Amino acid sequence: MPDTPTLKLDRDGLHRFISEVWPAQQDAYDPARYEALRPFFCRYRYPVTGDDLRPGATVSGPTMMRLADIASYSLILAHLGDAALAVTTGLSIDFLRRPVGPTLVCDAELVKLGRSLAVSRITIGSAEDGSEPNLAEPEAIANVTYSLSLLR
Amino acid sequence: MPDTPTLKLDRDGLHRFISEVWPAQQDAYDPARYEALRPFFCRYRYPVTGDDLRPGATVSGPTMMRLADIASYSLILAHLGDAALAVTTGLSIDFLRRPVGPTLVCDAELVKLGRSLAVSRITIGSAEDGSEPNLAEPEAIANVTYSLSLLR
Amino acid sequence: MPDTPTLKLDRDGLHRFISEVWPAQQDAYDPARYEALRPFFCRYRYPVTGDDLRPGATVSGPTMMRLADIASYSLILAHLGDAALAVTTGLSIDFLRRPVGPTLVCDAELVKLGRSLAVSRITIGSAEDGSEPNLAEPEAIANVTYSLSLLR
Amino acid sequence: MPDTPTLKLDRDGLHRFISEVWPAQQDAYDPARYEALRPFFCRYRYPVTGDDLRPGATVSGPTMMRLADIASYSLILAHLGDAALAVTTGLSIDFLRRPVGPTLVCDAELVKLGRSLAVSRITIGSAEDGSEPNLAEPEAIANVTYSLSLLR
Repeated sequence: MPDTPTLKLDRDGLHRFISEVWPAQQDAYDPARYEALRPFFCRYRYPVTGDDLRPGATVSGPTMMRLADIASYSLILAHLGDAALAVTTGLSIDFLRRPVGPTLVCDAELVKLGRSLAVSRITIGSAEDGSEPNLAEPEAIANVTYSLSLLR
Repeated sequence: MPDTPTLKLDRDGLHRFISEVWPAQQDAYDPARYEALRPFFCRYRYPVTGDDLRPGATVSGPTMMRLADIASYSLILAHLGDAALAVTTGLSIDFLRRPVGPTLVCDAELVKLGRSLAVSRITIGSAEDGSEPNLAEPEAIANVTYSLSLLR
Repeated sequence: MPDTPTLKLDRDGLHRFISEVWPAQQDAYDPARYEALRPFFCRYRYPVTGDDLRPGATVSGPTMMRLADIASYSLILAHLGDAALAVTTGLSIDFLRRPVGPTLVCDAELVKLGRSLAVSRITIGSAEDGSEPNLAEPEAIANVTYSLSLLR
Repeated sequence: MPDTPTLKLDRDGLHRFISEVWPAQQDAYDPARYEALRPFFCRYRYPVTGDDLRPGATVSGPTMMRLADIASYSLILAHLGDAALAVTTGLSIDFLRRPVGPTLVCDAELVKLGRSLAVSRITIGSAEDGSEPNLAEPEAIANVTYSLSLLR
């Protein structure tokens, strides 16, 4: 990654692409959710809903894993564009503190973008709706690995 | 684990407990989904729905991770009963093949049940609705870790 | 993996290959250490030495990770032969019980052997020198991922 | 982690402690190897030796995992002092680029220090002997989990 690449899709392009190929998920890729989307970095904000909660008003693990997946997939798609096929091959997550919301902030950092493999590093924390999360005390951290190939 | 314990909850008790404390998830813990639930082992069957699919008729990663979570949580709850608090502290998953369904079969094996830590090993594969999966060629494998404590 | 492949290297061929390209490690690949080496499965036995012990006569984590690496690398090399390049891309390990020896038994099961990716599942337990380990209560479990390519 | 704690052991205290309880490893905990050791952060430098190399002049995976283990264990010991027992319960590592040396720089960040669980996040890269590593392009990243208890 010596040279900073230009993104092939911005947040609107990303949303358009998902709406076309995977309409059921278009809300998850709403452009308003991306506080930042730039080379090697994405910050995604997610307002917790009642469906995400476990007993004790804790956000469920599957919701956290889904956020890690969305943020890292968004970042890779933004880099590679719609001609690429990126398939998740591995995810490893540690849950560190009770995730409380009301907004979950998920940072994805792309630490490897090779020809056949991409890896992103995820940090998730809670924030009030408009404010900054305290990511020095994250609620979860994860590493996500993708296998890459060209569709055409 | 030298002595085989008796389960504190069977599949009906498990369903009753979840229905009470977490009614939104009671369908996921439907007793009919457990093909087996015995000491140290659980086999959970899940009929894939349209919502679970990604483009290419592939089951999405978050659906797979959710299955790993449900099967291992069920197995630990069955062992510990409703007086225990089990919190997921880590999950590591490898996606090996395209998961196709129509039914996903998720095996959870409890390889550690200590006083403060439990670990289960997950194997997921596809099957026709009534038939056996080919778990020698799994679609995903995962390890899930729980921190345990007593509620009362 | 519908058809069972023939191994391209047996334990002697494996040892010969390592002795040639990586002489410093030839002892680790001593044929006598492989109790089994067959398609999709390898059982490797390792006699614990004083250097492997932490305070408390516990085998150190790095020794356990090294065993997982040797057993899974052996299994993949045996399948692919010396024309292949297999690079470890990820390893995830859970330490479950105090590993005591005097012999550590490390089972590797190859759950995926694709064109560009291979994944093995590791189970480690202790045994008396000539006897069977109790792998129903493993001391560590791991998943190891390799990126594959052809050298020639 | 709202309040910044004082470390109970500095690099000399750490070295003294290891020399006493685990003399075989005292070189690995040489105070000169710690470029930084402060609350929640440790930077450890390791000069690669011939024994660490695989064919192709690549540092072996087990060496990388050992570094992750030393740096995170040092950081936790420094926080908890010699009255604590910290046992590694899990490690997950992704190998991203060929590690070349001649010095490996391993950063450990303590992202969770609870009563029963600690988690550190590891970043490893290469550097010339006296210079800074380029950790924006890490050679490996890892998460390491410890179970904590008091010895006395």
